Amino acid sequence: MSFEYLSDASGRPAWDGVLPGKPAPFFLEAGEGEHAKLFGDHFTVMLSGDETDGQFGMFLATCPPGEVIPAHTHADTHETFFIVEGAVRVFLETPEGETDKLLKPGDFGFVPSGYKHAYRVEEPTRMLGTATGGFERFFQHMGTLADAIDPASPPYVPEFPQMGAAAQRHHMEFHPQHRWENQ
Amino acid sequence: MSFEYLSDASGRPAWDGVLPGKPAPFFLEAGEGEHAKLFGDHFTVMLSGDETDGQFGMFLATCPPGEVIPAHTHADTHETFFIVEGAVRVFLETPEGETDKLLKPGDFGFVPSGYKHAYRVEEPTRMLGTATGGFERFFQHMGTLADAIDPASPPYVPEFPQMGAAAQRHHMEFHPQHRWENQ
Repeated sequence: MSFEYLSDASGRPAWDGVLPGKPAPFFLEAGEGEHAKLFGDHFTVMLSGDETDGQFGMFLATCPPGEVIPAHTHADTHETFFIVEGAVRVFLETPEGETDKLLKPGDFGFVPSGYKHAYRVEEPTRMLGTATGGFERFFQHMGTLADAIDPASPPYVPEFPQMGAAAQRHHMEFHPQHRWENQ
Repeated sequence: MSFEYLSDASGRPAWDGVLPGKPAPFFLEAGEGEHAKLFGDHFTVMLSGDETDGQFGMFLATCPPGEVIPAHTHADTHETFFIVEGAVRVFLETPEGETDKLLKPGDFGFVPSGYKHAYRVEEPTRMLGTATGGFERFFQHMGTLADAIDPASPPYVPEFPQMGAAAQRHHMEFHPQHRWENQ
């Protein structure tokens, strides 16, 4: 993992310790949490599996419009999308065929483990993700830690070994050749 | 359970079948889900433990300002608050004493199982709750099913036996005599 955008020379991010790491109560104000940057997107972990006995974790994604995220599957992660602000098109493969849905504020999507999916951010977006506990730190592992949500910071593009290690750690499979019907 | 506000004479709510009841993908537009009314609040289940192997469920609460919800504990439910719109003050008992926090849009709160807590809606509010799977239908059991989010519908005030049965079913303990320092 790299730490390019951390101001503290110790290598510890400004948010270190913001989550209790065990089932203890806490509050976060908007914008607080564990920040990481991956490509042009910021991912802010607000709750981890460490606080929920592994049941679920939660993260806020702050994203500019962009290219489609490559198709992928999670072997053992259930994942949800809740749009706070903006618009995101989710692409999904089901036994009945491919489908896609443009999600707007207040809209919700559920992708269980094992389903090939992708998404494309269509407008500047904030969306809340809730997923099986442990997955929430994937973005820290594939991306780079950051002190804050800073859309002006440069994109972080991981090298392939980092991408592969993060995917393996979180039991994800990417399908970069997949093209969606409605893409 | 009562069905006072359902338009369908069959007693089945308009949203019957909106959730798949198993780990299958689905989308909901804003305002869709399983609706129930409890006192003046609407609770809309967007995801249940049936879809997540029991890991977590999610619900949107649409609430007018009101009195404090009585202090209570969940024996085996971790619960979160994410404010989409409005303001909610959460009251909490910790080993170090009582605390409270006014949550505004984008703010987040986590209350693990076993912690006595309460909340008071301070402004017209929409908040997203994520909790241990199974808890999400508590509001249907203590309240009444409804076809839609309809703030103009009359409040639903359960009788004590319904309240007690719902609390017992969801392993909740209410502490109606508790008064918070900052209440």
